[in-house]
Amino acid sequence: MKYLICILLLISFNGIAQEREMKFPDVPGYQTLLVDLHIHTVFSDGSVWPDVRVYEAIRDGMDLIAMTEHLEYQPHKEDIPHPNRNRSYELANRLAEQDSLIVVNGAEITREMPPGHSNSVFITDANALLHDDPFDAFRAAADQGGFTFWNHPNWSAQKPDGIARLSDMHRQLISEGLLHGIEVVNDVTFSDEALQIALDNDLTILGTSDIHGLIDWQFNVANGGHRPMTMVFSKSRNIADIKEALMEGRTAVYFENLLVGRETHLVPLIKASLTVESARYGDDYVLPVVISNPSPVRFLLENMTNLTFHANGDVLEIDPYNTTTIYVKTLEKLDEFTLRFRILNALTAPKQHPEVDIEVITE
Amino acid sequence: MKYLICILLLISFNGIAQEREMKFPDVPGYQTLLVDLHIHTVFSDGSVWPDVRVYEAIRDGMDLIAMTEHLEYQPHKEDIPHPNRNRSYELANRLAEQDSLIVVNGAEITREMPPGHSNSVFITDANALLHDDPFDAFRAAADQGGFTFWNHPNWSAQKPDGIARLSDMHRQLISEGLLHGIEVVNDVTFSDEALQIALDNDLTILGTSDIHGLIDWQFNVANGGHRPMTMVFSKSRNIADIKEALMEGRTAVYFENLLVGRETHLVPLIKASLTVESARYGDDYVLPVVISNPSPVRFLLENMTNLTFHANGDVLEIDPYNTTTIYVKTLEKLDEFTLRFRILNALTAPKQHPEVDIEVITE
Amino acid sequence: MKYLICILLLISFNGIAQEREMKFPDVPGYQTLLVDLHIHTVFSDGSVWPDVRVYEAIRDGMDLIAMTEHLEYQPHKEDIPHPNRNRSYELANRLAEQDSLIVVNGAEITREMPPGHSNSVFITDANALLHDDPFDAFRAAADQGGFTFWNHPNWSAQKPDGIARLSDMHRQLISEGLLHGIEVVNDVTFSDEALQIALDNDLTILGTSDIHGLIDWQFNVANGGHRPMTMVFSKSRNIADIKEALMEGRTAVYFENLLVGRETHLVPLIKASLTVESARYGDDYVLPVVISNPSPVRFLLENMTNLTFHANGDVLEIDPYNTTTIYVKTLEKLDEFTLRFRILNALTAPKQHPEVDIEVITE
Amino acid sequence: MKYLICILLLISFNGIAQEREMKFPDVPGYQTLLVDLHIHTVFSDGSVWPDVRVYEAIRDGMDLIAMTEHLEYQPHKEDIPHPNRNRSYELANRLAEQDSLIVVNGAEITREMPPGHSNSVFITDANALLHDDPFDAFRAAADQGGFTFWNHPNWSAQKPDGIARLSDMHRQLISEGLLHGIEVVNDVTFSDEALQIALDNDLTILGTSDIHGLIDWQFNVANGGHRPMTMVFSKSRNIADIKEALMEGRTAVYFENLLVGRETHLVPLIKASLTVESARYGDDYVLPVVISNPSPVRFLLENMTNLTFHANGDVLEIDPYNTTTIYVKTLEKLDEFTLRFRILNALTAPKQHPEVDIEVITE
Repeated sequence: MKYLICILLLISFNGIAQEREMKFPDVPGYQTLLVDLHIHTVFSDGSVWPDVRVYEAIRDGMDLIAMTEHLEYQPHKEDIPHPNRNRSYELANRLAEQDSLIVVNGAEITREMPPGHSNSVFITDANALLHDDPFDAFRAAADQGGFTFWNHPNWSAQKPDGIARLSDMHRQLISEGLLHGIEVVNDVTFSDEALQIALDNDLTILGTSDIHGLIDWQFNVANGGHRPMTMVFSKSRNIADIKEALMEGRTAVYFENLLVGRETHLVPLIKASLTVESARYGDDYVLPVVISNPSPVRFLLENMTNLTFHANGDVLEIDPYNTTTIYVKTLEKLDEFTLRFRILNALTAPKQHPEVDIEVITE
Repeated sequence: MKYLICILLLISFNGIAQEREMKFPDVPGYQTLLVDLHIHTVFSDGSVWPDVRVYEAIRDGMDLIAMTEHLEYQPHKEDIPHPNRNRSYELANRLAEQDSLIVVNGAEITREMPPGHSNSVFITDANALLHDDPFDAFRAAADQGGFTFWNHPNWSAQKPDGIARLSDMHRQLISEGLLHGIEVVNDVTFSDEALQIALDNDLTILGTSDIHGLIDWQFNVANGGHRPMTMVFSKSRNIADIKEALMEGRTAVYFENLLVGRETHLVPLIKASLTVESARYGDDYVLPVVISNPSPVRFLLENMTNLTFHANGDVLEIDPYNTTTIYVKTLEKLDEFTLRFRILNALTAPKQHPEVDIEVITE
Repeated sequence: MKYLICILLLISFNGIAQEREMKFPDVPGYQTLLVDLHIHTVFSDGSVWPDVRVYEAIRDGMDLIAMTEHLEYQPHKEDIPHPNRNRSYELANRLAEQDSLIVVNGAEITREMPPGHSNSVFITDANALLHDDPFDAFRAAADQGGFTFWNHPNWSAQKPDGIARLSDMHRQLISEGLLHGIEVVNDVTFSDEALQIALDNDLTILGTSDIHGLIDWQFNVANGGHRPMTMVFSKSRNIADIKEALMEGRTAVYFENLLVGRETHLVPLIKASLTVESARYGDDYVLPVVISNPSPVRFLLENMTNLTFHANGDVLEIDPYNTTTIYVKTLEKLDEFTLRFRILNALTAPKQHPEVDIEVITE
Repeated sequence: MKYLICILLLISFNGIAQEREMKFPDVPGYQTLLVDLHIHTVFSDGSVWPDVRVYEAIRDGMDLIAMTEHLEYQPHKEDIPHPNRNRSYELANRLAEQDSLIVVNGAEITREMPPGHSNSVFITDANALLHDDPFDAFRAAADQGGFTFWNHPNWSAQKPDGIARLSDMHRQLISEGLLHGIEVVNDVTFSDEALQIALDNDLTILGTSDIHGLIDWQFNVANGGHRPMTMVFSKSRNIADIKEALMEGRTAVYFENLLVGRETHLVPLIKASLTVESARYGDDYVLPVVISNPSPVRFLLENMTNLTFHANGDVLEIDPYNTTTIYVKTLEKLDEFTLRFRILNALTAPKQHPEVDIEVITE
């Protein structure tokens, strides 16, 4: 009867007005799209009707969300006895179609370890995944062309030490082409070990909200927080291309102020986020290099050259949605030179940070 | 599986840190309790499971909420076919019992005009209110000791001009003791005409959120907004006393920055909110009177005496959760005197604002 | 050696980003210019060099400031023995000339009561005002074409009761055409009595900062405060026209959230600040009237018609630098009608608030 | 006549209310005191009277400031012909004596390169430093027991490449015991090369504001900025002990979010800032370690152990004035263990960051 009114929330961070709606720059050859592939509603153990998930995603600037109710865990079944596991998707999709948000169907195959919990998304019928044998469930997902990934492999309720470890069953699922990705970020957690498993087994690197309650509360949106999300580097903004990108592993994760991904994908994203807007000498040889950062990330940079700076040590912060000026002591007036930074808030492997060259051509 | 994490949201308003949790001072003889008697969940046409309503209420500092699903409007019945109209209450109450929030049962009798929509709260079995004849429904509520009120009498979907007008049916319900209150505030609306009806017919003055979506979004909580609520002046914080206070009309409404209520109830509340913390002359006859306001209301005062002020005209603002100093030009050093203000952001009747005396005893 | 870096301070007020720089809409026939005619530096008893006054004024969006050192009070004379009373103006003006700020010369004739302190501005040589007899000083100012006004007539150091009262000497100065204006606002004070004196004696209504320390601290700029200022309704933005406007009394005062002025001047300013941006019926007869307010003032309005509103009582707040929607219950679909408001945060005389008609033509 | 009103400015940073007044924890054996040893007023080329410097310092929580006017550069001499170079100190000290701020005398020996500009502080008579030969000036300072340091050795107006380089004259001053310290931070600049010179030559590491205009504007205080300052690790809060600490090099610098100092001094300060408040296992082996940080610094930590974290990669941020929880995956329940972090926003030498052990004893 009454509809939720959409108001852009402006928050102030370091004096910079910041929208809730996330947006990253595109990279050469691909659009940078934002997806959240792990979402619950009242149709399994979540606390909201599917419409709230659509409105949250629109406010957050998501391009695509997947509805992924637990297949085997239905704590609301006394009230919602409906056997149709596609229902949450149907309701969300009906609403989203009026808007630009893409909603896809999914399901969470919810088992003890191994294999623990796994999502399959881009499926056509979640009901068909209901099988006693987990392999049958994964195969049914594969039959529908599903993109399937291991959820929260670091979950301490199933792994008391919180350490993600590949089981034989996971190895078999991977070798049979039934498991394509792994969550290195789930909800408020990150797992170095999951990242290593992704790299070792050629799995797609994923981050999801796994939201059950409200995005605003769980991720402290009123104070500038945001849900974890996967950036997908896609040929275009349609389902087929996004799925292809996921299958091919063209992703990165945005979690709090951390970026996680393969170097191939992170470096172009960071280069697109840190561009030189101007570099013009004044009377001396201290060159103001104005760096523009259109992304929501506050970058932490470590200087990897022998150049020193006039207003910073070797570790710098680059404000989000803003320009930052680095004063480079070039010793003489140069026509061009290269800055090189290690990106401390980005990970390409456990404890490994990508490095990025920024070419400066002076005016 | 995952639970909502409760974080107090601090917002900044006029430079004053402000909690989301509302709290008003008590008045002589009564506690000032905060109630919201009009709330929906997925069990009628709302968008959240009952647990979210409990968490929202705790964050907002509510003392009591009533779950009031539409009896006759069940748009989710395809998914939630359960015929038990008490279900939303049962689920919320089970959760609230662990906490200090009081949850009571209720139901929205949902009819065309007349009588339109009405809530009955403090009932024991909502199912028993399902009757074709509206009078039968109201009588069933009365049989259970329900406190029953007319919802959004200004609702422009039922009254295109938005003007609340008493129908013969309403007159009959009142005369039979079946209707005890009226919403003068519903959701984002206020009705002068509903206030006049309350005064003319001795109905309890009420304000409710009528929430269907999320409190945070509907009332812009991240930017300092709050849900509409009813203040109940109750002998103690238990169900029986709160119900008695409602039945006896001991209420006021807090809507945006507006207080609405009978003079009998508003004046003590305002006097408890505006107390003199200190008043000490310096070298001259300009007396700094420090007013303490522990309430969340930003009071707008109009000076009704002939005294003039050294730092204000005749209209003043008193910051919430803070002290404000008024510099009174008393012409000579007085031992005591009386300030008198009309409270512009409070209404006792359409266009009528209460006046409050503040006795000042100088130190 | 090092220069002050000018950074626009954005503050958040009611969720609206707000610049420090003040700007009011123009009125029919006149530009609305912002002036501060009472300013001190180290050249009398202030704490800053004149350059800071220029930078403060530019940050605040002032169009014109007057440098008004005390002629007879020179507490820094041990260090600054310079007898040239024009020096503060010369230094400020030299700096301001590079910018768009206008600086004019002035002086504060600093006497016991009567006549107390008075400023003369737009003068050519402050030194020529040094006379023992106050009348001689006023006449010297008049000879130079000075615009002369009574400062802080409510000053409790000279008037312990803080009540502005006209002395015989003031009457004589007025009758001889030697006194043209009066401060109704000085620093952090407002005087009803000074306003009445202005009205009774046809004096120009003025508000000034009388700044000695830092504008940022004295008026709490970091939390959204601003210096008191005089709005001048001037034919153009040049010295001659601004002086003419002052001489003819075309002013209003902006102090905290209060506007003070003659009805002739306040009503056009308020009408220019509150314009109807759109008014289009939906399905019912509740008309959303979108009011645009480009000014920094948060208007407090009292509804003077019999129309009632769907989301407000009879007292409304109109956010600064924003649009506010008033939902008017017009009973039927009207082509046009008139809203009438009393402006509670504006004064045309003690306890007297201007009323403004707003014509609404529906789309 | 009017005095500056001191209001604590609260700013919001990451949702945490933060006072303008700086305060660091003490370290074993020493108090951590905050000093600014480079300050100008109208008595050389600054823009404020000395009183503003005192009020700024009190607002900022400084323990000691030195007034350091240029001896040889007197651009205001036309207006302030006073030959007494101690005047700025005398005026500031008179005011500060009523308060707890300590003000000491100083002077800036202002020469072309070499030796460029140098401050001597804790001197008794600045006038006695006026000599044509710079060595005579330094010796006069030494005769008075002055603590003398090289100012902004990276100043690009004197060194177009902004590179601090020791001249023969500086070497001689050092060898004669006439130069005790060096600014590695001045105003908005930091110099790696100056830091290296300090380390190579056993000079005291200093950071100063070199303020000429307003602290609030130059360092963007309204948005959470602060002046550069030197932390002095002193036996007590008196002049003699502070001077001794400076002479013995017991300092560190706080510049934006960067700490600079010798490892001996930085490590105790960081250990005092990062203390374990609690560490208690729940049901699993993921240990929440609550770190308390009472300092204004947002620490950037790099994990140097093989332990991995449940909610972070290897780079973490620790909020100022708050507690931060690190979830450590200890694999089994341990009684105690050691975390080790490299502090990325602290420098002990160019590109060298101190490492700190944090012992965790579980409950």
